[in-house]
Amino acid sequence: MYMTQGIHRSVQTDGDGLATSFRGRKRTWSQFAGRVARLAGALRALGVRPGDRVAMLSQNSDRFVEYFYAVFWIGAVATPVNIRWSLTEILYSLDDCTPSVLLFEENFIDHAAALRQQAKSLTRFIFAGDGVGPDWAEGYETLIAESEPVADCTSGGDALAMILYTGGTTGFPKGVMISHRSLVCSTLLVAQVAPPDRKAITVHTMPMFHIGSTTRVFRAVHFGSALEILPRFAPELVIEALAAGIYADIALVPTMLGMLLDHSDAHGGDISPIRHLFYGAAPMPEALLRRAMTALPHASFYQAYGQTELSVVTMLEPEFHGIDKARSKLRSAGRALPGVDVKIAAVDGSELERCATGEIWVRSPSAMMRYWNRPDTTAETMIDGWVRTGDAGYMDADGFLFVVDRVKDMIISGGENIYSVEVENAILKHAAVRECAVIGAPDDRLGERVHAILVLREGHSLTLEQLSAHCAPLVGGYKRPRSLEIRRASLPLSAAGKVLKSVLRDEYRAKARRADEASDN
Amino acid sequence: MYMTQGIHRSVQTDGDGLATSFRGRKRTWSQFAGRVARLAGALRALGVRPGDRVAMLSQNSDRFVEYFYAVFWIGAVATPVNIRWSLTEILYSLDDCTPSVLLFEENFIDHAAALRQQAKSLTRFIFAGDGVGPDWAEGYETLIAESEPVADCTSGGDALAMILYTGGTTGFPKGVMISHRSLVCSTLLVAQVAPPDRKAITVHTMPMFHIGSTTRVFRAVHFGSALEILPRFAPELVIEALAAGIYADIALVPTMLGMLLDHSDAHGGDISPIRHLFYGAAPMPEALLRRAMTALPHASFYQAYGQTELSVVTMLEPEFHGIDKARSKLRSAGRALPGVDVKIAAVDGSELERCATGEIWVRSPSAMMRYWNRPDTTAETMIDGWVRTGDAGYMDADGFLFVVDRVKDMIISGGENIYSVEVENAILKHAAVRECAVIGAPDDRLGERVHAILVLREGHSLTLEQLSAHCAPLVGGYKRPRSLEIRRASLPLSAAGKVLKSVLRDEYRAKARRADEASDN
Repeated sequence: MYMTQGIHRSVQTDGDGLATSFRGRKRTWSQFAGRVARLAGALRALGVRPGDRVAMLSQNSDRFVEYFYAVFWIGAVATPVNIRWSLTEILYSLDDCTPSVLLFEENFIDHAAALRQQAKSLTRFIFAGDGVGPDWAEGYETLIAESEPVADCTSGGDALAMILYTGGTTGFPKGVMISHRSLVCSTLLVAQVAPPDRKAITVHTMPMFHIGSTTRVFRAVHFGSALEILPRFAPELVIEALAAGIYADIALVPTMLGMLLDHSDAHGGDISPIRHLFYGAAPMPEALLRRAMTALPHASFYQAYGQTELSVVTMLEPEFHGIDKARSKLRSAGRALPGVDVKIAAVDGSELERCATGEIWVRSPSAMMRYWNRPDTTAETMIDGWVRTGDAGYMDADGFLFVVDRVKDMIISGGENIYSVEVENAILKHAAVRECAVIGAPDDRLGERVHAILVLREGHSLTLEQLSAHCAPLVGGYKRPRSLEIRRASLPLSAAGKVLKSVLRDEYRAKARRADEASDN
Repeated sequence: MYMTQGIHRSVQTDGDGLATSFRGRKRTWSQFAGRVARLAGALRALGVRPGDRVAMLSQNSDRFVEYFYAVFWIGAVATPVNIRWSLTEILYSLDDCTPSVLLFEENFIDHAAALRQQAKSLTRFIFAGDGVGPDWAEGYETLIAESEPVADCTSGGDALAMILYTGGTTGFPKGVMISHRSLVCSTLLVAQVAPPDRKAITVHTMPMFHIGSTTRVFRAVHFGSALEILPRFAPELVIEALAAGIYADIALVPTMLGMLLDHSDAHGGDISPIRHLFYGAAPMPEALLRRAMTALPHASFYQAYGQTELSVVTMLEPEFHGIDKARSKLRSAGRALPGVDVKIAAVDGSELERCATGEIWVRSPSAMMRYWNRPDTTAETMIDGWVRTGDAGYMDADGFLFVVDRVKDMIISGGENIYSVEVENAILKHAAVRECAVIGAPDDRLGERVHAILVLREGHSLTLEQLSAHCAPLVGGYKRPRSLEIRRASLPLSAAGKVLKSVLRDEYRAKARRADEASDN
């Protein structure tokens, strides 16, 4: 199993077929293969050897895809950089995995210039944008034009293919080492539930440094499915891509789907060409699903649950997205993919009874090898072949997994375990609430108390008393919010579209500290 | 990746669902898992250790499936015996892989008794039939009732799971070693083209010692698809199974499909519940396809090409089975599955031009580990990760593979290479011909000459002159048959439904020798 296999097969069966499309620039599979082989030659000439890391700091583009495969082609290791990180976080991750080459584009010239000064390992820079790059960087197209193609080394199996950094917002980023075999297995496992649709084009909007997004790129190349690449998610870009009269296979988090529906309602634009809609990071709210099913009458919905360390491990199939039937499964993350073991474990790793909440443990052919340079964290996370997800959840009698919270987002209040998501779901049922997060705030009496942070709908207001009264019939008394904060701006989201509770906790603590200092003065 | 994973997942998601059905005997997944765990305990108590081989000599049954998984459950190695072999061939294979335990049923009591005397490694016997077995054998149901269940050792990955013997009719049988990973990968690769249909039941008719058949059993367990097991292929048994009102997923060779259609026409019996029809060993003749599509209006047809050393590596998808469109692909074996490398190679392994005929080489995650005890044969067959199939073929411009012959069935006549299948296809177009095989007969002048062996349709006759005239516009002059033999009985078939040309060649030579001896006297 090796990552470049899909290129060879696509050239064999569909050489003149469309491989990538970006801002009107289109390449066939034969052209794509030729460019990858020449970029691979260029990287080798720049001194990249098998096992060396090569970084890319870029919005999505067709060149981002070529970068991945040129790196695999010479047996090197792709380390795409999280573009939402601060320079400090990026620098930390680069100093950790020590790539010698960095590719970047016009949006990141300043970052690249700073990294050139500060990242010790970087010696060569490639400007992979359009227009003219800085004079200290090689030109991407010049390299491709002037380099000889090299033969695919077909490195694969247990060889390291990619390092993705995760957890940058909570402590130091950890480098997740993913082998060729794990990446290919991830594609094969998902295909059991969502087989390739040869009539559909993959419309790619999610940032390519994220596991849920890279695996979508790799899936398209594996199956020889054409990629329509958008530089980033924006509703108008998606609608423009869909206007080309294609059948689309797209991945969006529920929030993005909502934005897309809003934009379509407000400005027109037909989104019905979407045939396959993958979503993750959060269950699909029923109201949003109802809206989406009207706007997307031909679409199959697939929920995927996973994490960087595992890739996708459970899926909720299209048949459980009916409005009327199987509604009880809609808030679940679906069932383990065939070939994947999922269990709800006690602290000692033993499996809990059905419907009991515990940590989700997973054993999968798509699992990471280990963390880069972090044997202790690896030993804490991987136990007898199982990966501890850090997510809390339960499994119903039919084997459907319900993710209730991050284990570390659990609030312990008065000795009781409170899963914040459960409280959030209750709060979100209030008509005035648009966004909501619940965190544990330090409390002298309770240890932690339930603190709610809300964004309200235009023209609404809400007091703690009103909120508490709303929650009373929905959750146990000890789970009701004890304090409330209302914000105007949207809550901070991770690249995967999840609310960053660690940021909210940090902000809360900083504010409390300032208040303490003010009262001391 | 481990073979028993599917059992655990099916218990998790569908414990009360149907797992196996055989002659009216039905077991749920929970029952199946419990029986496997107890049979595993029994095998361990009989002294079977991880890596030990356990043999089974039996027609298909639900117990055959339990045998496979009980063996995997304790990390042992399944060696199902080819029931069409002579005692000599069976003995050879058992002395090669040295199992200590043999399971058998009522059809093979005599064989088992003989093996008890002659097979050196066998020490324990289990009667897995119905009724009372010989007193020197343990009773299968007694063992299950009286043994404690043991925990699944979850042996997997590169560990040896199964040895299947191949080539018994041509030289000595070779044991093909297949790992857990290869078997799971085989299921995942095929699922890309033929995803599981949860509404369908797998109707199992092909003998379980054959790769194309065992992998169908393993696929069903992996996906948690119910298995309706027939002891052997017989049209009336298939029709009886279909009468239960199920949607069926079935594998048949084209010959069997023809028999099924004949039986349905002659005796009635609705075969339309067949929804997924897998076939292999030979392309689907167009006339048969036309007939089948009328009788099976809801069926998707899938052709699979592979061999014991590789499992399935190319498939022809349902959309290429239309009568009117894509007819030119119908005689092909389809395209490489995504994740599988297929090339047409010259003798040195270099890839030939498109449409040139050479040996088919394959690199696949489903490939065997090596041959058991045969390092020399392994070294000849596996080269740089590629498996030489021994099949000759070519690939068209769209990447479709056409299998033209076994390399060793190629006839060299007057210095020209003649692929016998090409000649056979020409002959089969004659209305009088029901079955046909072409072999190379020793010839003083040509080296070999094209010799045709035919079975004619009822009431027809055919002379060599007529046959030659028929072939004249279809194949080059040097390819036309130079001698002809007409038989009344059907041609001998392998377990996979292929004409046994080695048998025909042996018979021809024996007959020629007898004729020589007679003329000498």
